[in-house]
Amino acid sequence: MRFSAESMTAPDPTFATALQHKIDRKTKPLGALGDLETLALKIGLIQQTLTPELSNPQILVFAGDHGAARCGVSAYPQDVTWQMVENFLAGGAGINVFARQNAIGLTVVDAGVAHDFGERPGLLDAKMADGTHNYIETPAMSAETCQAAMEKGAAIVRTLKQQGCNVIGFGEMGIGNTASASLITHCLTGTALNECIGRGTGLDDAGLIKKWTLLEQALRRTGPLTDPLAVLAEFGGFEIVMMCGAMLEAARSKMVLLIDGFIVGAAALAAAQMAPAFTAYCIFCHTSAEPGHRAQLAAMNAAPLLNLRLRLGEGTGAALAYPLVQAAVNFLNEMASFESAGVSDTC
Amino acid sequence: MRFSAESMTAPDPTFATALQHKIDRKTKPLGALGDLETLALKIGLIQQTLTPELSNPQILVFAGDHGAARCGVSAYPQDVTWQMVENFLAGGAGINVFARQNAIGLTVVDAGVAHDFGERPGLLDAKMADGTHNYIETPAMSAETCQAAMEKGAAIVRTLKQQGCNVIGFGEMGIGNTASASLITHCLTGTALNECIGRGTGLDDAGLIKKWTLLEQALRRTGPLTDPLAVLAEFGGFEIVMMCGAMLEAARSKMVLLIDGFIVGAAALAAAQMAPAFTAYCIFCHTSAEPGHRAQLAAMNAAPLLNLRLRLGEGTGAALAYPLVQAAVNFLNEMASFESAGVSDTC
Repeated sequence: MRFSAESMTAPDPTFATALQHKIDRKTKPLGALGDLETLALKIGLIQQTLTPELSNPQILVFAGDHGAARCGVSAYPQDVTWQMVENFLAGGAGINVFARQNAIGLTVVDAGVAHDFGERPGLLDAKMADGTHNYIETPAMSAETCQAAMEKGAAIVRTLKQQGCNVIGFGEMGIGNTASASLITHCLTGTALNECIGRGTGLDDAGLIKKWTLLEQALRRTGPLTDPLAVLAEFGGFEIVMMCGAMLEAARSKMVLLIDGFIVGAAALAAAQMAPAFTAYCIFCHTSAEPGHRAQLAAMNAAPLLNLRLRLGEGTGAALAYPLVQAAVNFLNEMASFESAGVSDTC
Repeated sequence: MRFSAESMTAPDPTFATALQHKIDRKTKPLGALGDLETLALKIGLIQQTLTPELSNPQILVFAGDHGAARCGVSAYPQDVTWQMVENFLAGGAGINVFARQNAIGLTVVDAGVAHDFGERPGLLDAKMADGTHNYIETPAMSAETCQAAMEKGAAIVRTLKQQGCNVIGFGEMGIGNTASASLITHCLTGTALNECIGRGTGLDDAGLIKKWTLLEQALRRTGPLTDPLAVLAEFGGFEIVMMCGAMLEAARSKMVLLIDGFIVGAAALAAAQMAPAFTAYCIFCHTSAEPGHRAQLAAMNAAPLLNLRLRLGEGTGAALAYPLVQAAVNFLNEMASFESAGVSDTC
């Protein structure tokens, strides 16, 4: 199934007036809750209600391996992908800590890790293959595989929706996937490749130059590309592609999407180019320390909630920002108005 | 009792090495949790432990009236101070919503509101007077009253400490208190008065010019002032002065202090000038939209956690940032290490 942009509509903006009035009558100076007011308005519009609710919040961590990772685009060996998935399943990673703290459900999706996990609680088997092909030499996946991965992502979201979830955070794990995200960002924003590249999990100067050289080589192979589906198939990790399909489905079903940092941002960027209404459903959670994130944010006209110089991935930025999202909903529902509290308004 | 700076020592820095090692062995790239790592180090140092805990978190909202408020330094009438205290006591204000969400205890301190509340649950009577004198014409309070207010603040913190609290957020309510904070910031940082002044709860251009003119008049009355105690007595609201005493006691007892925005920042600035070790105990929670906050932050070399264009006061920034503070403690305590999780480190 090819995604149809027409199936996603932006929230009806006529409701904004009623929402803004409710926000403005709360016992606070006009606008004094700053970005939380913008957020409350956005969520109220998505749900088309003056009393929005966040139900059964979930984080999906998509994991996948990259053929190119074996060429040296990362500071870590490829085995770290499956080792970190094991860490997620054991509850010991950063995302486990923060999801637990904020009462967010967590599911790890094996989109294409080069490892056999067997059946495991907390792990969804959606494996496309044992990692992508090496995009320096050949497309990461075929157009058909790309479509199939996106559809698997959409199906996962449909299941969560049936379970009463209306807010999803997106996270990822995949050694080498900042390189993949850099290529996607370069192609879809037109930003110079060197401005889309960073140290990922910790490359030194020589490693950074090597990464840049390898990615230039990949771009010479394909020539210019701008179609988001083609870009995903050429350079995408399975985790990024499947996440993109999941995001499109979540926005189409009018859920609230929590967008993490640079790699999740690459999937969001592709989704935004496939469906113009997409970003109306997105809450951008944090500004990554990875330099290419800025180009994505500019292209999506996004101003994230947090700027804590995070660059861990896994959806940690989404999990950490979640209490602010809840706070926006809570003030809208729970704060007294000038009238109800008997507080004088400005003279 | 005059506060003695010698009674407050900075945390022993020798422990930092062990803390940093623990942070660096967590299953994440070096430094990948950004500002949360700095925060974990700070809290570990304050508590001198590898396994810090946040116990019985509390927010104190100090409320007071300002004689100068009757001259037109605020967009709101003075009665809003007591009306908002009633709103706090009824649970309907922004700080109630956010403290409740994040399971933080909340106590309102009547430091000097021009209203008789009687005995009320959740309200601490520490009233110095029915508001300060009008500092445009005369000192806001005597030096003796200033000392007494600070000592009352310290006593409140000692009680919380006895109740097992080791982390305190500071908030305030007082119509006209951005004007007071502007004067304190100007005197203690040397920043031009116009750069310390903002629209507070919502002044228009004419109101802003009037506020500026009145504050210039107050400064002409006193002449140059730089001693923090003298500045507090001349211009301080009772809520600001009492908060300053509470902060000094909290830092002296090695608690974690959550510093809110511009008005709380004015009290912190005075505390920092009285005791150089003070800021080692402070977590700066958010950057206020009130322009003078920048001068305070620069003077205290502070980089707040949140920047959400908040300007509500009440301690809302502290309550909203608290989950991030908890997250810093949690990752330090709960995340697996490379060794414990069997994850390969960089090659």
